[in-house]
Amino acid sequence: MTIKYPNGQGHYNKQQLQKKKLTKGPAIYANRGMSMEEHISHSNETYRQHNIAIIYKKPTPIQVVKVDYPHRAAAKITEAYYRRASTTDYNGVYKGFYIDFEVKETQNKTSFPLNNFHEHQIEHLVACEKQGGISFVIVSFNSLNRIFVLHIDSLLPWWKGCFKDGRKSIPLSAFEKDAIEINLGVSPRVPYLNAVDQWIKEKI
Amino acid sequence: MTIKYPNGQGHYNKQQLQKKKLTKGPAIYANRGMSMEEHISHSNETYRQHNIAIIYKKPTPIQVVKVDYPHRAAAKITEAYYRRASTTDYNGVYKGFYIDFEVKETQNKTSFPLNNFHEHQIEHLVACEKQGGISFVIVSFNSLNRIFVLHIDSLLPWWKGCFKDGRKSIPLSAFEKDAIEINLGVSPRVPYLNAVDQWIKEKI
Repeated sequence: MTIKYPNGQGHYNKQQLQKKKLTKGPAIYANRGMSMEEHISHSNETYRQHNIAIIYKKPTPIQVVKVDYPHRAAAKITEAYYRRASTTDYNGVYKGFYIDFEVKETQNKTSFPLNNFHEHQIEHLVACEKQGGISFVIVSFNSLNRIFVLHIDSLLPWWKGCFKDGRKSIPLSAFEKDAIEINLGVSPRVPYLNAVDQWIKEKI
Repeated sequence: MTIKYPNGQGHYNKQQLQKKKLTKGPAIYANRGMSMEEHISHSNETYRQHNIAIIYKKPTPIQVVKVDYPHRAAAKITEAYYRRASTTDYNGVYKGFYIDFEVKETQNKTSFPLNNFHEHQIEHLVACEKQGGISFVIVSFNSLNRIFVLHIDSLLPWWKGCFKDGRKSIPLSAFEKDAIEINLGVSPRVPYLNAVDQWIKEKI
């Protein structure tokens, strides 16, 4: 199983995770028992299987302190701690382009709170874009059943607090205006590369 | 500290790691107390600091089973296991190209044993190259103090056993002929992107 690990804010063990899913799981995915992260992982698998793109989620960084060796083949880690990631969660290659992104969810209905991001994530996305990659965020408004793909260039003015309400949140209207909305599909479930296709068209 | 994690074959705790370094560390790095992995990580840091490339080593994948919560801010993992990585260790973006590679060391003086690779690593490198990325391996012959960067296209015939001695190893002479040799520098310590530059020239 994969531990859900939202923004380094909290960590859950298996029991807690199951409880969380039952009691607090986003309405949109409740029926399927799938988090946004699982949707994206499934989509990436579909993309890989069809030789469309090679994109993976990076493992959660963990600092290992103690390891036991009950059997040589099965080293058991007995003390370790979560570390904050240096980068975003997802990267890979699509049509010759380097792709880098972060996936976020909110229960809010009118805006996306910017404290969902860490400074180093935004810096990493900007740095990748400068090197010729394509950087973006996938934001799911779970209560609204709507998913948007927002390019780093559109996110950055909000992050920098260039608009009148400072850098607290991005209103839904900004997503409707500047992001690309993605409808859930069967396979891939979240066809977010459709958004990337539009940006690639502008590049070439 | 970073746990050394060679090819999923063995795992070391801190004490073992230090002992290993003292007793079995490759002659070439002994004086500096640096493994090849540390050299590459340092090089990547240099490349990032100078806005030359954004390349990171992926975290080691670890399956977490039990987590304790002595304090909310410091979740302690008390049972976890190493998992085999699905991909290679390193990827990123350089001059608009997706870069993907694996780093290997050998004490051999005449050839590089192919059992240093896993099938899934080679498959991943091939898949990335097909998507327009640049895939390669960095191989250090520690006893010879020589480092080579070998493109996946040059590695593949050896992996497939196309040559007369099957798929056991790649002779040093093949590296001298088909790979690009990298001299150690000060900063970056292993300027492996010099090799990538040559392949980019051929692409554009």
